[in-house]
Amino acid sequence: MTCSALTESGTTATEICDWLALRRDSAAAHIRRVPLEQLDGWGFDADTGNLRHDSGRFFSIEGIEATTDHDGRGTWRQPIINQEDIAILGILAKEFDGILHFLMQAKLEPGNVNAVQLSPTVQATHSNYTRAHRGGATPYVEYFTDGRRARVLTDALQSEQGSWFLHKRNRNVVVETAEDVPVRDDFQWLTLAQIHALLQVPHTVNMDARTVLGALPFAASEHGRTGGGRFVRALRRSLEVDGAADPARRTEVLSWITERRSHYGLSARRIPLRDVDDWSLGPFGLNHRHDRHFGIVGVSVSTEGREVGSWSQPLLRPCGTGMNAFLVREFRGTAHVLVRAAVEPGYRDTVELGPTVQFHPADYAHLPPEQWPLFHDVTSSASSTVHYDVTQSEEGGRFHHALNRYLVVEVGADFPTTVPDDFAWLTLGQLIDLQRHSYYLNIEARSLVCCLQTLW
Amino acid sequence: MTCSALTESGTTATEICDWLALRRDSAAAHIRRVPLEQLDGWGFDADTGNLRHDSGRFFSIEGIEATTDHDGRGTWRQPIINQEDIAILGILAKEFDGILHFLMQAKLEPGNVNAVQLSPTVQATHSNYTRAHRGGATPYVEYFTDGRRARVLTDALQSEQGSWFLHKRNRNVVVETAEDVPVRDDFQWLTLAQIHALLQVPHTVNMDARTVLGALPFAASEHGRTGGGRFVRALRRSLEVDGAADPARRTEVLSWITERRSHYGLSARRIPLRDVDDWSLGPFGLNHRHDRHFGIVGVSVSTEGREVGSWSQPLLRPCGTGMNAFLVREFRGTAHVLVRAAVEPGYRDTVELGPTVQFHPADYAHLPPEQWPLFHDVTSSASSTVHYDVTQSEEGGRFHHALNRYLVVEVGADFPTTVPDDFAWLTLGQLIDLQRHSYYLNIEARSLVCCLQTLW
Repeated sequence: MTCSALTESGTTATEICDWLALRRDSAAAHIRRVPLEQLDGWGFDADTGNLRHDSGRFFSIEGIEATTDHDGRGTWRQPIINQEDIAILGILAKEFDGILHFLMQAKLEPGNVNAVQLSPTVQATHSNYTRAHRGGATPYVEYFTDGRRARVLTDALQSEQGSWFLHKRNRNVVVETAEDVPVRDDFQWLTLAQIHALLQVPHTVNMDARTVLGALPFAASEHGRTGGGRFVRALRRSLEVDGAADPARRTEVLSWITERRSHYGLSARRIPLRDVDDWSLGPFGLNHRHDRHFGIVGVSVSTEGREVGSWSQPLLRPCGTGMNAFLVREFRGTAHVLVRAAVEPGYRDTVELGPTVQFHPADYAHLPPEQWPLFHDVTSSASSTVHYDVTQSEEGGRFHHALNRYLVVEVGADFPTTVPDDFAWLTLGQLIDLQRHSYYLNIEARSLVCCLQTLW
Repeated sequence: MTCSALTESGTTATEICDWLALRRDSAAAHIRRVPLEQLDGWGFDADTGNLRHDSGRFFSIEGIEATTDHDGRGTWRQPIINQEDIAILGILAKEFDGILHFLMQAKLEPGNVNAVQLSPTVQATHSNYTRAHRGGATPYVEYFTDGRRARVLTDALQSEQGSWFLHKRNRNVVVETAEDVPVRDDFQWLTLAQIHALLQVPHTVNMDARTVLGALPFAASEHGRTGGGRFVRALRRSLEVDGAADPARRTEVLSWITERRSHYGLSARRIPLRDVDDWSLGPFGLNHRHDRHFGIVGVSVSTEGREVGSWSQPLLRPCGTGMNAFLVREFRGTAHVLVRAAVEPGYRDTVELGPTVQFHPADYAHLPPEQWPLFHDVTSSASSTVHYDVTQSEEGGRFHHALNRYLVVEVGADFPTTVPDDFAWLTLGQLIDLQRHSYYLNIEARSLVCCLQTLW
């Protein structure tokens, strides 16, 4: 990463939000809820009850029976989204006047609360971009499929929500080109400084953009910003403590992850959706009998601005707003993030590292406070400082109004340094190193790393 | 790794082989083939036909239906070993007089051609070492489960044979202790130099020891050997070209792996063993109708020297000896190894990097030469030099007489530098970096890296 990527320039966040509003108007999208039985081209399989597209493509809603000894959860059944196709979530970068810019797209997704959000240059599955199904080709995909047209900055398969997707992964990739790139209507070149300003605005930078940008391998010494208070300096120092600076700690961290993955068992067996007893089909979709966790709902979309003019599809609708929080503590002037070994049924390898706290309060409302997740109340401590607190959206192509409150909370010197076995203190440099490889950080943690980047 | 780990010392390879022969005698093992129906404690499930232990533990033989677009293989069904339990393959290291030694075990496994081979200090599944089932506790396991007793040198989950195991992985770990360690009868401290000498002897250093030792992160500048010819110098330089020395190439290599994983589809669905039509049960086990690929056979073992005195179990018996070869070429004085993106049905993430050539000739005997794997005949080229050519055994606890010829072949300057998309030239430093993480190198490639280490 060049130092200038973070330099302030040009258009303000407000102007970019205005542009997104214009794109929203020009898309002229009409999105409405429809019963699952009325989805055009989708149906319930006669044998299994799975909800799938008539073509067998896109994705399907199936059942799993999951078993784990993590957190005493035992065995349960639930619906889950199955999508084997790997999407490219790709951001094209290019230097203008020595400043790295990223080509961001104003993209309509039917599950977004505000229809249009800022997304990667390319956000398309393999079947999207290899065959022009009922629509045009995917713009700019050639920069990601033809190695001669751009240089790779980062490129790894990463998981998505492990409670909602079975073994899903997408390709998170940033490439830099030196070519002249024509800019289409729905696209705009933005600097990291501009994107960071937009991350202070709820529901503006979409999940796919956050996970890709959160993996950018830039070093503290190169980011070109100086000054800032004690916490900002501690974050910058944290960025410098990576695997190269501290190889012994890198070995310890990798060994801790290996140990946690060996410690817990997890199996997730595909079962017919009709065998998932706790969910049942009603007029408002497929819902949990206590209205917990999530439901599956149908939407119908008509629009002018998208490659496919109108379609309908199922979406997963979570119950209530979730909370993803990183607790951060200074150790001798260097910020450390408290990550947690999370076990979710859709993970490919049992454990991925998640936020310190990751949960949906609505799922715990019926339980006494002592059964809520560890550290869930840390924002209420007098010695805590909240540095980031913005509600953001998850992927609107699969989820209906899936919102999470993202928090970065600095805890004081009274916070215990010794933590339970599922937790570990990592530096920002270590978190960025881990994202070079697949399946170390979960989607919620990667999103939070992106939000953290706005702070230094 | 300290420089002295490679220093020659003490006992010769012949003396260690004599010691292994003594242990073999003292084990007094009697191993004989028995029909699968006569295995004590094992049986075919009435519904599925799966072969499993009455306790539900250890492992089971099940069926899969696999589909991939790699190599035009399409869809097929086969038996596969399913074992969810993760084993520790752990080697305990300790310095004596400044020289790092490794505590190696003379271990009996029923599938070994010679019963006893040199194995890691600990080679035990979670259920082995957490509960003393019909036998004693696992010696030395406390050094791997109690972080205060040793320092970790390397620790990652790695896959095993992807055509024979479904999603299997074991923990490959080396720890160094400063404690006084009592040495039991079946154990001996060996230096790397001694182990490397033993790797020239067929069927002596077992698969588990090879995969763990192959991941040792030692730098060329530290290995303490000097001299050697042109090829040896090129290998040492290759060891120095790692991710730290060439971060841009590291990004390229990771991107190539990500691209190959996105390029191919792979699904492996568990099915009842009775639905695997091409294999059928006969007096000699479960065999392929053309006697290709592998069969499942039964063995009965009685012994004096093992924690469990006598038992019987199924083993997978491959048809014929396999071949795993690394082609190596010099580029401007630095050796590069030609790896291949392999797709095997039991992999967790579609692609792992394997040897340049990996196949069982018996499976191709009925096909014309042009349908044999690419580069299979490279040893016959006049400009090739064979630097390593030893037949080694695969894991004798699951396989019956599974033998592979391991080859390191230097190709001349006439060998093409541009290779098909599934191939890439990597340095030794890059291969060792990749082994810090799970599932980049397959078991055959990791074994070959261990054999390569004997050459410099």
